[in-house]
Amino acid sequence: MTLVVQKFGGTSVGDADRIRAVADHVARTRRAGKDVVVVVSAMGKTTDDLIRLASEVSSVQPPREYDMLVSAGERISTALLCMALAELGVAASSFTGSQAGIVTDTSHTKAKIVDVRAGRITEALEAGKVPVVAGFQGVSTDRDVTTLGRGASDLTAVALAAVLGADVCEIYTDVTGVFSADPRIVPDAHKLSRLSFEEMLEISAAGGRVLQLRSAEFARNHRVPLHVRSSFTWEPGTWILEEDVSMVEEEAVVTAVVHDASQAKITVTGVPDKPGVAARLFRTLADRSVNVDDIVQNASVRGTTDISFTVPRIDVNAAVEGVSGHLAALGAEGVTSDEGIAKVSVIGAGMKSHPGVTATMFETLAEEGINIDLISTSTIRISCIVREQDVERAVRALHRAFELG
Amino acid sequence: MTLVVQKFGGTSVGDADRIRAVADHVARTRRAGKDVVVVVSAMGKTTDDLIRLASEVSSVQPPREYDMLVSAGERISTALLCMALAELGVAASSFTGSQAGIVTDTSHTKAKIVDVRAGRITEALEAGKVPVVAGFQGVSTDRDVTTLGRGASDLTAVALAAVLGADVCEIYTDVTGVFSADPRIVPDAHKLSRLSFEEMLEISAAGGRVLQLRSAEFARNHRVPLHVRSSFTWEPGTWILEEDVSMVEEEAVVTAVVHDASQAKITVTGVPDKPGVAARLFRTLADRSVNVDDIVQNASVRGTTDISFTVPRIDVNAAVEGVSGHLAALGAEGVTSDEGIAKVSVIGAGMKSHPGVTATMFETLAEEGINIDLISTSTIRISCIVREQDVERAVRALHRAFELG
Repeated sequence: MTLVVQKFGGTSVGDADRIRAVADHVARTRRAGKDVVVVVSAMGKTTDDLIRLASEVSSVQPPREYDMLVSAGERISTALLCMALAELGVAASSFTGSQAGIVTDTSHTKAKIVDVRAGRITEALEAGKVPVVAGFQGVSTDRDVTTLGRGASDLTAVALAAVLGADVCEIYTDVTGVFSADPRIVPDAHKLSRLSFEEMLEISAAGGRVLQLRSAEFARNHRVPLHVRSSFTWEPGTWILEEDVSMVEEEAVVTAVVHDASQAKITVTGVPDKPGVAARLFRTLADRSVNVDDIVQNASVRGTTDISFTVPRIDVNAAVEGVSGHLAALGAEGVTSDEGIAKVSVIGAGMKSHPGVTATMFETLAEEGINIDLISTSTIRISCIVREQDVERAVRALHRAFELG
Repeated sequence: MTLVVQKFGGTSVGDADRIRAVADHVARTRRAGKDVVVVVSAMGKTTDDLIRLASEVSSVQPPREYDMLVSAGERISTALLCMALAELGVAASSFTGSQAGIVTDTSHTKAKIVDVRAGRITEALEAGKVPVVAGFQGVSTDRDVTTLGRGASDLTAVALAAVLGADVCEIYTDVTGVFSADPRIVPDAHKLSRLSFEEMLEISAAGGRVLQLRSAEFARNHRVPLHVRSSFTWEPGTWILEEDVSMVEEEAVVTAVVHDASQAKITVTGVPDKPGVAARLFRTLADRSVNVDDIVQNASVRGTTDISFTVPRIDVNAAVEGVSGHLAALGAEGVTSDEGIAKVSVIGAGMKSHPGVTATMFETLAEEGINIDLISTSTIRISCIVREQDVERAVRALHRAFELG
């Protein structure tokens, strides 16, 4: 029997009407003869409301208690969805992250899944029921309630799909799929009918907001077929699948242009060009939980070099303070930060065998008079840091240059 | 070391300011050198809001899902209180009913506690922490979330106090204690400084709203000293303790006058006066989950009798329909209901050795021209059913007659 994991985000279950619409869709899937496991987020702004309430109560929010607090939202939506399903004659049972067997480490507010013991989910399926699982949460090896980080209901769904051997994990959201660029910036951006796991991973890593990065990683590592689609239109969305030869041949060299204006650039100048210095620098940042994205080190001139990297803007102060306090130990000259930057990336599995992509990208930006600050690449991605005010123009020009319209 | 269980109801944690006030009180208790276990209800109207949301989503509310839904409220208040305690430098850990070891049967929405495995609470106390436990909820022997019925946060507190061997269980509420009568009706009603377990039980059973009946029963059965007091004034309230000789001698014969206008009277007429008929009648009602309170059967005249009993008004239809459908099987003539009644009770441990109380009660009501419909008694209580419009006058007259002012 076909098994489908369906994940519904916060806007998809935003109010009573939306929850009934989701129940109706789940019921249709059941009537089509498929087994269904549902994963839901908290309703709309519930989690934000709880966080605001916490800030009214106390300036000190121990992570264990933060997790107990914000995990309440998903419990509410699971129970409500089961009630809506009951009204449609579909037997369903709600499960907390703990009851669903999502076992995590003890890193509250950003816990990592260490095991999925889905025995109760399997039992419910065997009893002909639809298990409705609270996303975003688990139980730690210390038996405390944990949460997996914002947006991690996707991860709950992908992890359950992997363990249960689901045929597909459907991610329902408020957009109709993954697009060749942000449609708010590029009016003729088109919905991508399918992507390889690697492309999806690069798109999420480059700042695409449709699928959470850790979920994209988990799906790739466990080869879980995904279908990202809208719970408002129910039309077919974007499939994320194993890359095959026909796919590469059919697809364009570049699949999507992605941008990210949420980062800042940090530059450490006059770093001694000797072993161990970079290690010490990034250990300092890791100790402060700063998420470093791209790292670029220029060639050494006169024994010293500059190291630049990007971090989320909310981490800029932590990063600069961390590095400043270690300048002497690092033997570096100084540290600067720049919040006026943005990243634009072109991504495509076909890029591997088409060496001209880099040149086309740089030429396109040059024609637009857009200066490139940093460059980084992977096998199927090229990213450039540009000025933030240039980034939308860059996206439009690249989307046109690679004929994605 | 002294161990105190402190239970705070919904109005006591109704908003951010109230939660901080509760945290301050808990911190003071800790600084006074006492160990504290806290039990909290959901904030203010949270549970009502969740129930309204459920009714918007679905007309079908499976009890298991109802419990998952409404148990979210207490999780929120436990976490928020722990945050407020953290700000005051008091180490605290929140626990769900399940984590606190409140094991129940599988009767969702009205589960009974079958075991309390408070190992994690004891561990937290030993680690110098204040455990903050979600009231009103537990985990069933089937590992599902259960709730213990409305107002049952008191029961969570009393059960934990019993198992932990607490020196006292403090029930914080929005009134300053148990009164000799409802102060809204009797302006000179006074706060009772102490009561025996039996008196508290009779007061709760007779309609007193300060302490939930099941909690009063549990406290009596396990001899858990209670202190019912206000979280708004923090003044000493009413102690509920083992009765001792000095107490009986000091106290008045009658301790309190309690009334209850939430019930209705059902009368089954022409019931054959033979064995098994009453059993069949009340089995019929039990099968419909009708809570029968007082039962009065008059002496048999010409081989048949009338049986009257009181039920909560919300159960009147279920009771009348249940009996009507079994009139033939019961051999009874008919069934009538009367929602215009109320019960007035006088309660006092001293009553046992003072036979004149009954006479005084009846004389007092007669002088007021108040007709008595039904009478029922226990060792330390006399209750009369009167017309609802007479009940407040009855309470005032009895309070005066027994010199409780």
